[in-house]
Amino acid sequence: MRLVGESLLNMFRNGDTFLNMSSSMVAATKSERTRALIRDIALRSFRERGYDQTTIRLIAAEAGVSVGTTNYHFASKNDLVQELYLDVQQQHRAAAQPLLATSADLIERLGIVFRTGLAQLEPYHRFAPEFLSAAVSPRSSINPLSSDSSESREIVVGLFREAITGAADKLPPEFDEGLPSALMLGHLLLALFWVYDTSEGRERTSRLLERGLRLLRLSLPLVRLRVLRKPLRELLDLIAEVQA
Amino acid sequence: MRLVGESLLNMFRNGDTFLNMSSSMVAATKSERTRALIRDIALRSFRERGYDQTTIRLIAAEAGVSVGTTNYHFASKNDLVQELYLDVQQQHRAAAQPLLATSADLIERLGIVFRTGLAQLEPYHRFAPEFLSAAVSPRSSINPLSSDSSESREIVVGLFREAITGAADKLPPEFDEGLPSALMLGHLLLALFWVYDTSEGRERTSRLLERGLRLLRLSLPLVRLRVLRKPLRELLDLIAEVQA
Repeated sequence: MRLVGESLLNMFRNGDTFLNMSSSMVAATKSERTRALIRDIALRSFRERGYDQTTIRLIAAEAGVSVGTTNYHFASKNDLVQELYLDVQQQHRAAAQPLLATSADLIERLGIVFRTGLAQLEPYHRFAPEFLSAAVSPRSSINPLSSDSSESREIVVGLFREAITGAADKLPPEFDEGLPSALMLGHLLLALFWVYDTSEGRERTSRLLERGLRLLRLSLPLVRLRVLRKPLRELLDLIAEVQA
Repeated sequence: MRLVGESLLNMFRNGDTFLNMSSSMVAATKSERTRALIRDIALRSFRERGYDQTTIRLIAAEAGVSVGTTNYHFASKNDLVQELYLDVQQQHRAAAQPLLATSADLIERLGIVFRTGLAQLEPYHRFAPEFLSAAVSPRSSINPLSSDSSESREIVVGLFREAITGAADKLPPEFDEGLPSALMLGHLLLALFWVYDTSEGRERTSRLLERGLRLLRLSLPLVRLRVLRKPLRELLDLIAEVQA
C-alpha cells in the first residue's frame, strides 16, 4: 500500500483527477503498481510539459523511484508515448461508443468518431508540434503508422469499422475492407491540420470537418456509380496500405 | 577569379555537374561569388549527407572559408535549406513548363506538374525522413508553409495556376482563386506519401498519383453540379488557407 499511498499523494498534490489514478489504483503486485505509477506520471508530464521536456530522469524523480527502475518498466521515453497513445485512443473509444448508439446515419456516425477523436487530442494542442516532429519520420518508433503503435491504431480503425457496419445506409461491400484504414489515415490528416490550426477553439478544424462531412454526404450516392466505384476502391486500397 | 577557380576545382574534385556550378560561375563580385560557392556546396551536402549531417562548419571547410564568413552570408543551416527549396522548385518549373506546352488537357497538365515535382525530390529520398522531421513543425522556419518558404512555394502554386488557366477545359470560375493553393497542398501530401514509400522506384507513389488523376478525370464533370460546387469550393478555400 505504500506506493499506492505515495501515488495518491502525488496525484492530489498535482491536482489530478480520479480517472488518471485508476491504473495505479487497480494494479495488483508491487511491480505492477510501480509500473502503473510511472505510467500515470509520464502521461501527466506529456500533458503538462510536452514531449521535449519530459525525461525519464524527471519521471523517476516524481515517481520516487530510480532511473533504473523506470527503465526496467519502460526502456525509453517512446515506450511511454505508446502508453499515452493507448490511453488517448481508449478514451476516444469510451467517448465515441455511447454516441454511436444514438444514430444510425452513416455520415453522422463518421462525424462522431472524428469529433470524439479530436476532443481527446485537445489537451495536447500546445505541445502538438513537438509530438509531430518526434513522430512524423517513418523511422520513428512513435510514428502512429509504426508496428509499435498498432494497438492504439487498431482502436481507431475499429471505431471507423463500427461506424460503417452499424449504419442503416450500406456502402458497396468492396469498401468494407479498405475504408476503415483509409478513414483512420483521414483522421491523422485531420489531426495534422489541427496541429497547424491557430484559430480560437480550433474552430477552423471543426469547420473543415463539418464541410468535409457535408460534401461526403452529397457525394456518397455517386460512390454507387459503377464508373467511379472501381477507381475509388483502388485508390483507397493503396492509401490504406501506408505504413511506417 | 581565384574563388571561381577554387570553386571549379572543388566541383570537379567532387564530380559535380556543370549545372551545379552555374550560380558560382555567373556571380559578379567577390562577395557574391563566395555566397554562391557556399550555397552550391551546401546544396550538394544536403543531397549527399542529408539534413542532420550537414553543418555550417563542414560547409565552411569545404568552401575554404571561415565559419564567420559562412554565417555572414547565411545566418543558419535553415537559410541554406531555403536555397535548396528554391533550387528544387526552379528546376521543377524548368522541367514542367516545356511539357505544359505539349498538352491542353487539364488532367494531363496537372499530372505534368505533380510528376515533374516528384522527380525533383527523388535524389533526396533516402534523407527525406530527416528533412520531414526538421520541417514539419508549424514552428519550423523551413516548414514549406512558413513565410520564409513563400518564394519557393509560390513557384509551385504558379505552376498549378498555369496548368489550370492554360487548359482547354475550363473549371467554374469560383475555383480559380483557391484551387492552385489547394493543389500545392495536395502536392505536399503526395510528397508525404512518397517519404513513406519503400517500394522499388517509388512505384506506389506513381500509382497513387495516376489513380488519383484518373478518379479526378471521372469526377470532374460532377464539379459542375451546383449542389456540389459550393460545398467543394468552401472546403478548398479552407484548405488553401493553411499556413505555418
